[in-house]
Amino acid sequence: MAASPKYLTGDREGIKEFIDQFDVFLFDCDGVLWSGDHLFEGTVKTLEILRNKGKQIVFVTNNSTKSRTEYMKKLTNMGIPATVDEVFGSSYSAAIYISRILPLPPSQKTVFVLGEKGIETELDSENVPHIGGTDPSLQRPIEQKDYEEIASGAALDPSVGVVLCGLDFHINYLKIALAYHYLQRGAVFLATNIDTTLPSANALFPGAGTCAAPLVAMMGGKKPTSLGKPSQAMMDAIEGKFRFERKRACMVGDRLDTDIRFGIEGGLGGTLCVLTGVTRAAEEWKGGETVPSFYVDKLGDLRVGV
Amino acid sequence: MAASPKYLTGDREGIKEFIDQFDVFLFDCDGVLWSGDHLFEGTVKTLEILRNKGKQIVFVTNNSTKSRTEYMKKLTNMGIPATVDEVFGSSYSAAIYISRILPLPPSQKTVFVLGEKGIETELDSENVPHIGGTDPSLQRPIEQKDYEEIASGAALDPSVGVVLCGLDFHINYLKIALAYHYLQRGAVFLATNIDTTLPSANALFPGAGTCAAPLVAMMGGKKPTSLGKPSQAMMDAIEGKFRFERKRACMVGDRLDTDIRFGIEGGLGGTLCVLTGVTRAAEEWKGGETVPSFYVDKLGDLRVGV
Repeated sequence: MAASPKYLTGDREGIKEFIDQFDVFLFDCDGVLWSGDHLFEGTVKTLEILRNKGKQIVFVTNNSTKSRTEYMKKLTNMGIPATVDEVFGSSYSAAIYISRILPLPPSQKTVFVLGEKGIETELDSENVPHIGGTDPSLQRPIEQKDYEEIASGAALDPSVGVVLCGLDFHINYLKIALAYHYLQRGAVFLATNIDTTLPSANALFPGAGTCAAPLVAMMGGKKPTSLGKPSQAMMDAIEGKFRFERKRACMVGDRLDTDIRFGIEGGLGGTLCVLTGVTRAAEEWKGGETVPSFYVDKLGDLRVGV
Repeated sequence: MAASPKYLTGDREGIKEFIDQFDVFLFDCDGVLWSGDHLFEGTVKTLEILRNKGKQIVFVTNNSTKSRTEYMKKLTNMGIPATVDEVFGSSYSAAIYISRILPLPPSQKTVFVLGEKGIETELDSENVPHIGGTDPSLQRPIEQKDYEEIASGAALDPSVGVVLCGLDFHINYLKIALAYHYLQRGAVFLATNIDTTLPSANALFPGAGTCAAPLVAMMGGKKPTSLGKPSQAMMDAIEGKFRFERKRACMVGDRLDTDIRFGIEGGLGGTLCVLTGVTRAAEEWKGGETVPSFYVDKLGDLRVGV
């Protein structure tokens, strides 16, 4: 089980063998295909080679700020051909979970969102009512009257039954206070994902997990249910949509604690770690519990053997 | 050691005996004297009685948003006579720690502040250079160029050697990103205090601990050194200033994990828990490690026995 991962960079035969054993490749994006706005060399060609071999490509992203359509545009703008159907994001995963799986009383169907437009779009796509999010009336400092109105409940919508945290570039004190009071009144605590960092410009920036962190602290350590990687709710939804044999699928990612764990816990046939994102060296999984089955310096290294 | 706390409400003799055994009373404020802008009944009279008996009063607050002078004004505006010297706040405690105790290289003396004016005022009072805080240029959403400039270091001040987190009502993504990059470059991680909640309007709102929480999450769980209650750095500074016998001092507070723990770990002669703030019932300390030596329903109950 804990066999050493196979290093594929420069191993022409190994790469061929690797590709042949899978029908489906699930790709994390940030840190794998690109970092921020920098597309890694060889990304486009590698995907093209896989498509030409008839492989199913799925872009599995924990990025909650973009809807599937927006994310597809990001992919194509970066020069990566993609369709909306190939995109599976954590906001979409959360929307599906809320609309189809989560039992909520009819009077408590509204979602209070800590996050960006992408979450709102995906909730809309599943007809889930929501407040908060990008509401401009919440883009301001807290005022004295807010304390009174939040405490009394006058500022709260009684139909809110869920607090959904994603990455919110406009996080502020007022929104954290509102979210906390909804949780205190019994709302279900969900997160699109709980990545603490987000790679950009070859560095790390605050991820969705940092937007949930203040609430987790206030709730005495109670964590949200995450609907992004490594949550298996997301894997089940992906399998339900694409209908593949898990042993013939490979998860490709840069993060051990989300991507690689997601693939291992999902029982996929393999996991491929790239060293262009959060994980920077093979030493990082030594002695750890989450070890990929393959790794390369960068995704583009797969071009060599094909 | 783990004797049951003595309940003083309505116990005239018990209250007299309680007061007589102390020379110094350290008071937490929010949740003890008032909640938000609501002064509890009997607060003023109780303090007056203690002063008339020659007791030293110290207002020990983890409120980091106000300087000692501002806090003294808050006290007097609430109708509570107080002098600046009687106020001991977590921002002041942090400023003293940074200026007099923390060893920093001469080129790394600047503090990046996540917090409000009170922290800046207290740092100024100790001649500690600082950036961040209430700087209006940081009161905006993050922009694309920020990612590049933060990642490259161009947007970072190389003289920053400390990140100090207090309660920041204007917390935003940009400031969290900057603080994280300073920490990544080796800045010392300090907090004025780590209370996760702040009582106001008879309810709880996000406390300073929620401003540090995103950074703690990004740093893989690494916590800041806190200079507020229950940190004994604060107790040492208070004792250094007021020079009292610890066995003749009593800490009065509403929070077990900060106030009562602060008094117990500081070896004070007693701790008094009031049930007007975070702690609402005697059941809350049952079976726990932090048990006060006395408790009352509200501070004003001490009037009865005097």
